[in-house]
Amino acid sequence: MLTRIDHIGIACFDLDKTVEFYRSTYGFEVFHTEVNEEQGVREAMLKINETSDGGASYLQLLEPTREDSTVAKWLAKNGEGVHHIAFGTADVDGDAADIRSKGVRVLYDEPRRGSMGSRITFLHPKDCGGVLTELVTAAPGAGHGGTHE
Amino acid sequence: MLTRIDHIGIACFDLDKTVEFYRSTYGFEVFHTEVNEEQGVREAMLKINETSDGGASYLQLLEPTREDSTVAKWLAKNGEGVHHIAFGTADVDGDAADIRSKGVRVLYDEPRRGSMGSRITFLHPKDCGGVLTELVTAAPGAGHGGTHE
Repeated sequence: MLTRIDHIGIACFDLDKTVEFYRSTYGFEVFHTEVNEEQGVREAMLKINETSDGGASYLQLLEPTREDSTVAKWLAKNGEGVHHIAFGTADVDGDAADIRSKGVRVLYDEPRRGSMGSRITFLHPKDCGGVLTELVTAAPGAGHGGTHE
Repeated sequence: MLTRIDHIGIACFDLDKTVEFYRSTYGFEVFHTEVNEEQGVREAMLKINETSDGGASYLQLLEPTREDSTVAKWLAKNGEGVHHIAFGTADVDGDAADIRSKGVRVLYDEPRRGSMGSRITFLHPKDCGGVLTELVTAAPGAGHGGTHE
């Protein structure tokens, strides 16, 4: 069961510049940064609010680390902007299986590692009205911040 | 001060079909519907979670009601997908003035009427890393649902 907007993923060419824009314009601070080599991204998580399911909502700023990453290809085609949205769930495996059974393509056979030790999968945007949609189960005890490069 | 992700605005060609997708795929129910003649949209708000500032986060599904609306033009260019993101604040007037003073273009001189009696304004996407960004102050007592066409 999807119980929160977990994050909005925003693709950018220059992570440091984009972090500074969100800090100076809105006062949003970096909660966590990491590099996800598998996804080919360097990312910053900005925590915006906590949510009624015990989680939180973030902006996830994404800069590609290599030209063959999906985010690099997306940026080359679309320019900077909202890349995906993510819903939080306590059970990404169960929800992914349920959603797959309804005919929506789930991009991974098994959830993979996402931000802050979470487990994630993606749904095909062509099956979701043009919206690349991620499902996230946070790691136990996640949400306390830190920088893990 | 922006204190929550208020909503994610998703543009679609067929609101009823898109509402049904979100209901049948994820179990998200319609919390509110309305037509905003000024914006030229018919919309459905799906409440996803409540937020730590006393507000809530929604998906806002948007179908244009006329061909000259900004959402209709956006759909013709981009196809269906995420149209904008919105941050909630207790003081849209003050925050818009503050953000304008930093050189970000604010699209309205004064906030206009948004969903559920809220007051809203938009920031120019070219000044926000490609992200059309809305600021929202909810109406007093908003968030109790209902259908106001």
